[in-house]
Amino acid sequence: MQPELSVVGSTFTSELARRAMALQVGDLPPDVTELARQCVLDWFGVTLAGSREDAAAIVADELSADAGSGRATVVGRSLAVTPRDAALVNGTASHALDYDDVNQAMFGHPTVPILPALLALAEDRGASGSEALTAFVAGYEAECAVARALGGEHYQRGFHATATAGTFGSAVACSRLLALDPDRAEMAIGIAATQAAGLKSMFGTMCKPLHAGLASTAGLFAARLADRGFTAARGSIETVQGFGETHSSSFDADRGLAEPKGGWYLRSHLFKYHAACYETHSSIEALRRIRASADLTPEEVEAVTIHADAAQMRMCAIEHPSTGLETKFSLRHTAALVLSGFDTASIGVFGDVQARDRALVALRNRVTVVADRPGGGPTPVEVKTRDGRLLHGAHDVAVPETDLPAQSRRLHGKFVALAVPVAGRRAAARIAELVDALEGLDNVRPLMEAAQG
Amino acid sequence: MQPELSVVGSTFTSELARRAMALQVGDLPPDVTELARQCVLDWFGVTLAGSREDAAAIVADELSADAGSGRATVVGRSLAVTPRDAALVNGTASHALDYDDVNQAMFGHPTVPILPALLALAEDRGASGSEALTAFVAGYEAECAVARALGGEHYQRGFHATATAGTFGSAVACSRLLALDPDRAEMAIGIAATQAAGLKSMFGTMCKPLHAGLASTAGLFAARLADRGFTAARGSIETVQGFGETHSSSFDADRGLAEPKGGWYLRSHLFKYHAACYETHSSIEALRRIRASADLTPEEVEAVTIHADAAQMRMCAIEHPSTGLETKFSLRHTAALVLSGFDTASIGVFGDVQARDRALVALRNRVTVVADRPGGGPTPVEVKTRDGRLLHGAHDVAVPETDLPAQSRRLHGKFVALAVPVAGRRAAARIAELVDALEGLDNVRPLMEAAQG
Repeated sequence: MQPELSVVGSTFTSELARRAMALQVGDLPPDVTELARQCVLDWFGVTLAGSREDAAAIVADELSADAGSGRATVVGRSLAVTPRDAALVNGTASHALDYDDVNQAMFGHPTVPILPALLALAEDRGASGSEALTAFVAGYEAECAVARALGGEHYQRGFHATATAGTFGSAVACSRLLALDPDRAEMAIGIAATQAAGLKSMFGTMCKPLHAGLASTAGLFAARLADRGFTAARGSIETVQGFGETHSSSFDADRGLAEPKGGWYLRSHLFKYHAACYETHSSIEALRRIRASADLTPEEVEAVTIHADAAQMRMCAIEHPSTGLETKFSLRHTAALVLSGFDTASIGVFGDVQARDRALVALRNRVTVVADRPGGGPTPVEVKTRDGRLLHGAHDVAVPETDLPAQSRRLHGKFVALAVPVAGRRAAARIAELVDALEGLDNVRPLMEAAQG
Repeated sequence: MQPELSVVGSTFTSELARRAMALQVGDLPPDVTELARQCVLDWFGVTLAGSREDAAAIVADELSADAGSGRATVVGRSLAVTPRDAALVNGTASHALDYDDVNQAMFGHPTVPILPALLALAEDRGASGSEALTAFVAGYEAECAVARALGGEHYQRGFHATATAGTFGSAVACSRLLALDPDRAEMAIGIAATQAAGLKSMFGTMCKPLHAGLASTAGLFAARLADRGFTAARGSIETVQGFGETHSSSFDADRGLAEPKGGWYLRSHLFKYHAACYETHSSIEALRRIRASADLTPEEVEAVTIHADAAQMRMCAIEHPSTGLETKFSLRHTAALVLSGFDTASIGVFGDVQARDRALVALRNRVTVVADRPGGGPTPVEVKTRDGRLLHGAHDVAVPETDLPAQSRRLHGKFVALAVPVAGRRAAARIAELVDALEGLDNVRPLMEAAQG
């Protein structure tokens, strides 16, 4: 194109951006301007005529209904928007700290694509707590089944499964809440299939949390359009040139339909309890237990050894972190925090101040990370005390907790640490109380109201 | 999962839908319900805390600004929605008839992903006609460059380029209208890259036109987020696991940056003038010219031969169409329409009545389609008259028109045929008048107001 030709050394995307932003009206030859004008005229003609087609009428009905009556809570803000927009913004917020839950069968984060849409829809319709829970489970199991059918190549190629499989989870959960018949639910899955997107190369940017919001709102939109009779291809995942074939070379429908371990994917659900990189969590847990059982003070610790695998070395090997962000990716610093009694569930602990704290730095300098084991399994740690004891421990956060009451207590502690600074003590207590009683709630609206913060 | 196991013969997607819709609250074991409730509690915690992160705050600001002040026209309806929703519904409407323009370098429809977003944004901001035209050209050239860089394997694999490349076109056009600096424009392209989606397997369903709306609104959202400082990966198309690598095995950045034929992709733009399958257009054009130059009546036609290639045989070989929809995919029927003097620009000509019209059926029974030539190039036709003349013609609609005033006259005719039945004669004339003067318009709002219909 126009203004100037390619600049040596520039990349494709930046060159596209540069050229487009440099384009001025004076650069356009008269015939190009005339062609552009002809495009505009033709567009108005086909759009006016097309506005009478069913596809356009259904979308227009849906958007005007949404804008007119639908109002849903933005969590943490005194702001109500359409259900689709609530799904988008709440989804982004819920994945912004990368502190939300995980399911390894999904290769991703199962809750954040589903709940934002589902709760917005439930709030808009005044659905009950048990309807919402049932729809959540339906969406959860479906997104894991899709991810498992896609197989490992999907994620390895560069797709963010939270975004892609998550779009299906949201569509299915919303379809279940709307009690669609199976035919329309299949249409909803199709409308989801043709929207599902999200690149792993966005990790480290704001687009990563945005993916959860986009997946959530896309699934909600899909279910609502399907409810209105909008059509998509049948068999959209497994069909020729369907989502499976176009997005994975390892797609296998039978694997996706096989019964998951324990009968339910939810039984392999993992929560995060530490506001740091997931790869630091196993050593944090092992050291927490050593500290509690031996009743250690930081001064008693002479040396710590963490036996790391390749993933931990790749992601969390920052030896001398100097910022709060860097401390989240430091096995040494997180060990020092734990052994000093800090609550690593709290995001406030990962600040620039703590990164430079003299006592913490002194302790982390007594931590050694050894890359001496294959991937996966428990992370072994050793603590040598000044009085000559050698304390051993090991933990694997990839193993689901089976003691659900204990897990609930920990989650309540994490919830308080996160929610109180934003919502205040009273609203946080109200949210926890309503969620604990969710199955019996006639209407989810009071819960959403409490979350406005 | 749960209620029942896989049903023999069911497909993956329908089985997913069936299972999810069959799930009842009574099917949930107590531990699964408890885990679901724990997911909800944890979600509120991470979402409240995450609502204070930049990514969430920017999205919330954008959505509340959009809901609060942004109002944009829905073409053909007395309805105003947010600019994002106007892009979505107008994009769907503009591709609903599949009668919008084409660029073969893009493997798709260049205008429908761009203009709906661009005009909504321009209307919201009160931008001038020349700003809108410049931004349109910037988006057009960019989407063609992206499509060309992706290469043929992208479309062959099953991606609908109108949807995927179109998302980039919309993002670039909106970025140009917002006069983003090149850095932010690169972020907008990144936010577009991680949303771009759309499956060719949706052809024949309402999702095909929806793709244009989705691409358009995604690009607008990308540009507006980038304008607010939202971040994405740099080099999002060509980077490792970027859009190029994940969506095409034939990605080549140099090919995308090379100068297009004639210096501008717009110079290879093609309009559609017939409300039927594109593969019928070359024979329609050839027969129109024969009819006009020989001043033929239908009764004078003894026999017609159309020499079709493989694509025409695959798509438009319905010999005895019985419905209006089928007549759009019939080389024989479209030939009969042309030789009977019907205006094939008008969508009303492709009705069930005409499909069964005795005179038309009699004439189409005198048309023979011969599959005797390789793909591409002009489509030859012969008309044998009752008085013994043999009239030859050939046309190739893939060759861009160079006589722009003639093209403009034809487009005005098409526009009137499409717009008047929906908007009325006065509004249609007003739209055409304002588009003809677009470069000089201080503000595009009067144009959009005229299009409300």
